[in-house]
Amino acid sequence: MTEFLQPGQLLARGVSRHLLSYDFVSVEEFVPERGRRVDVMAMGPKGEIWVVECKSSLADFQSDSKWEGYLPWCDRFFWAVDAVFPVEVLPDDTGLILADAYGAEIIRMGPEGKLPPARRKSLSLKFARDAARRLHRMRDPRP
Amino acid sequence: MTEFLQPGQLLARGVSRHLLSYDFVSVEEFVPERGRRVDVMAMGPKGEIWVVECKSSLADFQSDSKWEGYLPWCDRFFWAVDAVFPVEVLPDDTGLILADAYGAEIIRMGPEGKLPPARRKSLSLKFARDAARRLHRMRDPRP
Repeated sequence: MTEFLQPGQLLARGVSRHLLSYDFVSVEEFVPERGRRVDVMAMGPKGEIWVVECKSSLADFQSDSKWEGYLPWCDRFFWAVDAVFPVEVLPDDTGLILADAYGAEIIRMGPEGKLPPARRKSLSLKFARDAARRLHRMRDPRP
Repeated sequence: MTEFLQPGQLLARGVSRHLLSYDFVSVEEFVPERGRRVDVMAMGPKGEIWVVECKSSLADFQSDSKWEGYLPWCDRFFWAVDAVFPVEVLPDDTGLILADAYGAEIIRMGPEGKLPPARRKSLSLKFARDAARRLHRMRDPRP
């Protein structure tokens, strides 16, 4: 179903595949709070939460004025870009993932900024319930 | 895909649909610990965890010697049975759901037995990661 995905969604697919090798499971297009949507939210074996924003082009990155607003919603933050993206424009103190539709590689680990316990709890609950709700919709689609 | 589901799985489908009306989202055939599998594990809006065991026949119930082992894995426990099941054989102090393949109704609420915090935390994490992993497998199936 590759042909139905947008460039950014293809990067997200490659990222989600690769994160499994770190034992992180992902939900795409996750909404941590009203009006904010992250491309990939991933949860690690101890409940660690990573956010990955996928940028398919420089223009896509430059038009994103909201990215610093993602930082309070994760333990680590990463950009995911393709091989032709000019990575020097990305802030140094963020994580970097090189990705394509089929896989990815973590080039630079995002610095750790631990979530406060109350937010971790509510965010984990939302992640759990969103994932289960979407899974339910897929295994039992109804008109 | 009704024709590929076993009788107990059809009950689980009806149960999962109905639990949405309580704002509980479900994962079916969930394994809380090695060697133990519950038919439906559901998570409520505040992280409440319910377990529902689906019994398609009296024989199915009578052959289940393990059900009391499910109680330490939830805040409330329910049986789900169909309309012809002899409900008087079920223990009084358990929840009861009447179900078919298309829906269900809670007849008796299971008594509350709060999960200890550490177990709630590990169980919620497993629920979240299992749901996300299964969802990933469905949205991005690979050979």
